[in-house]
Amino acid sequence: MERDEGKRQIRLGLFVLHAGYHLAGWRHPEARSGGEDFGLMRETALTAERGLFDLFFLPDTPTSSRGASPSAAARLEPLTLLSALAAVTRDIGLVATASTTYNEPFNLARQLASLDHLSGGRAAWNIVTTLSGDVAASFGRAGHLPHAQRYARAAEFIEVARGLWDSWEDDAFVRDKASGVYFDKAKLHDLRHEGTHFSVRGPLSLARPPQGHPLLVLAGASDEGQALAAQVADIVFSAQNDFAAAQAFYAGVKRRAAEAGRDASRLQVFPGVLPILGATEAEARAKFDHLQSLVDMEQALPLLSFFLGHDVSGLPLDEPLPELSTSDAMKSRTELLARLARAERLTVRELARIVAAGRGHLVVVGSPVQVADTLEQWFLGGAADGFNVMVPYLPGGLEDFVDGVVPVLQARGLYKTAYAPGTLRDRLGLARPVSRYAPPLGAPRRGPVYSEH
Amino acid sequence: MERDEGKRQIRLGLFVLHAGYHLAGWRHPEARSGGEDFGLMRETALTAERGLFDLFFLPDTPTSSRGASPSAAARLEPLTLLSALAAVTRDIGLVATASTTYNEPFNLARQLASLDHLSGGRAAWNIVTTLSGDVAASFGRAGHLPHAQRYARAAEFIEVARGLWDSWEDDAFVRDKASGVYFDKAKLHDLRHEGTHFSVRGPLSLARPPQGHPLLVLAGASDEGQALAAQVADIVFSAQNDFAAAQAFYAGVKRRAAEAGRDASRLQVFPGVLPILGATEAEARAKFDHLQSLVDMEQALPLLSFFLGHDVSGLPLDEPLPELSTSDAMKSRTELLARLARAERLTVRELARIVAAGRGHLVVVGSPVQVADTLEQWFLGGAADGFNVMVPYLPGGLEDFVDGVVPVLQARGLYKTAYAPGTLRDRLGLARPVSRYAPPLGAPRRGPVYSEH
Repeated sequence: MERDEGKRQIRLGLFVLHAGYHLAGWRHPEARSGGEDFGLMRETALTAERGLFDLFFLPDTPTSSRGASPSAAARLEPLTLLSALAAVTRDIGLVATASTTYNEPFNLARQLASLDHLSGGRAAWNIVTTLSGDVAASFGRAGHLPHAQRYARAAEFIEVARGLWDSWEDDAFVRDKASGVYFDKAKLHDLRHEGTHFSVRGPLSLARPPQGHPLLVLAGASDEGQALAAQVADIVFSAQNDFAAAQAFYAGVKRRAAEAGRDASRLQVFPGVLPILGATEAEARAKFDHLQSLVDMEQALPLLSFFLGHDVSGLPLDEPLPELSTSDAMKSRTELLARLARAERLTVRELARIVAAGRGHLVVVGSPVQVADTLEQWFLGGAADGFNVMVPYLPGGLEDFVDGVVPVLQARGLYKTAYAPGTLRDRLGLARPVSRYAPPLGAPRRGPVYSEH
Repeated sequence: MERDEGKRQIRLGLFVLHAGYHLAGWRHPEARSGGEDFGLMRETALTAERGLFDLFFLPDTPTSSRGASPSAAARLEPLTLLSALAAVTRDIGLVATASTTYNEPFNLARQLASLDHLSGGRAAWNIVTTLSGDVAASFGRAGHLPHAQRYARAAEFIEVARGLWDSWEDDAFVRDKASGVYFDKAKLHDLRHEGTHFSVRGPLSLARPPQGHPLLVLAGASDEGQALAAQVADIVFSAQNDFAAAQAFYAGVKRRAAEAGRDASRLQVFPGVLPILGATEAEARAKFDHLQSLVDMEQALPLLSFFLGHDVSGLPLDEPLPELSTSDAMKSRTELLARLARAERLTVRELARIVAAGRGHLVVVGSPVQVADTLEQWFLGGAADGFNVMVPYLPGGLEDFVDGVVPVLQARGLYKTAYAPGTLRDRLGLARPVSRYAPPLGAPRRGPVYSEH
């Protein structure tokens, strides 16, 4: 098959929750779920690869939701699960969510580098600062760090991780049996980071990752998040449910990247989208109504409370959502939902049901052509470079998309018909980061060229 | 094939260093090595599974050796590598070395539980307290914890990990689509550990592991290590190079286990052994001599310094090793090597070459029958329940063992001819730990039965 090499095409990530993204998705008659079910995850990854998805994206919080969302009550840990999937997939990118607040840079940088090697250059890190206050208690912390401090720590964490990934130059391991030289000592760099949050000495105990650095993904919805994303991210993932707002967000991300001195086309924006598909619009609508009828308020209200950063369980269900102060925990999603509630004069119950479906993300209910139309509109209209696709339940919700929407996008020339060769960065058109220790092109090597950090 | 169900048989673990256990193994003409080479690890795991090995055992220290040992300069991280291997193997146990000094209990317990699920109940944890002082600097610690404190922290870490693994009772997830009940809240337990080293609230965000708890392995050479192993370990791994000393160690471990109130047969002892194989003894000897001739003193002296806990680089190479004070870092191995040097009046160079080969472990040079004879003697003579097999280089050193020694042991009825069904614990005859929250047999359930910790 021919590829439109020159034409900009839609990228797709699959945002994976084992019990489905729709809060009641697991109750659908065709649904399977199971936080410990590797078979389901393998099948999902293989279906996503059949659909030529660029990313298999695992969200995570290092705590149990205890019931607000079945997917977050219990699930396989991302770095171990993606490592297992690396061995049974070939092309799809593997995105591990991991917190800069509840990890040590050395351990996390090492596991991400290891995943990149295991997968032949397909690792990505979704950088989160962790917004659930519950987590602190699982890690013996007195309380949760404030938003700004979490982001300052995140920025330093990323700097340390990049330094560790650069520990060994790309050609450091010579393995010369005759001379007995295993590696070139001049190409080993001993990061000596002394910062505000971390003091970390290198080198990392692993060769430089195939991608140089694993791909960096950031949600970047808050101001601090967007500023950090503009500096370091390869992909920005966001929640948008309005075309004009999504266009404005997209333009803002690109502008900030340019202001940070980067080529804005190298920072790609992926809003989330939850497609509910049927052969016809009426079928899709019936499926959506069925899923909505399965929503249990006992689960939906805690989820709404989580996203609002306020306990709404005591509020009258059938009255409009009152004005709420902005939560420190998850500013952007709180504002998005509060805006929606105001604009549509939604009651608490109505908002809880909307959150149960798409959690603030764009929900598109329709036929494959209708869903493709929306994706095309957002993509060509300057609101998206790609999409993080949520499916209401597994495995059917994904199969519907791969068998229905993907061929429509391909027929329009908007989506690839085969994976390009190379690493994940190669496939996404992103440059391989040059090591901070690499000699300038053409320069003769005389020991370490740059002073060590 | 028939199995000798009733007869006690030798267990085998493969202790895996990518560049071979012999320090110069990677220089052998047939050797392959590469710390980032997943293909080599997959091939090694599949060969070990062909040889019906019980364990694929990955040592680890969270730092780079920077050259003392090529295998420890750079290598894939154990939990990610073993997760990838879980997806391409079926039966072999997967032993991840991980430090209680440089991990958070929540993160590590979760990844081990995840590996147990991914592998269908084949995860094991080699518990180490980490003896390299270098590591502290990679984790922003002022210095290395003293030996006794490291073991106290380890004991509490294990207690927390077990509590987290018990967070969900085995049948907690009901996933009843009709009622909308995803899990039974009465079977979710909220560990509230408040100890000396850790304060950790549960629950773990993952269902109870298939094995209940992953298998626990401890080196347990020091006094503190042996005491802890007697309490909690399923397998004790040790370095022994003398039959009588190994018998005494074995008896000591069993006695301590009995004193701790355990069934001593449930705590299995695996000394390490490095076989150097040839079709005849002469061939094996020639191979050993060749390997020894490849040893580079520039690598062997740092390795000896590491094991002695003393810098020997300034000592005269061809004079006897002087008396050294016992290092806090690695008491038992230091004592073992110092004893050996005294008994055999070894020079520094000679001891360095011995360490380069077996690092203090038993080295057997001979034909497959001769190696099998030694294993049989140790096994039947009360020195071992199994062995952790080191091979001088990959892949040939392992193939020699699988194709040569394994059939001899099988012909003698000392080794299985097929894997038994079930989890790793089932295969090793180890009981599945009962959850601390499980109701007594026959008791009616009325909410949580035991008070929470």
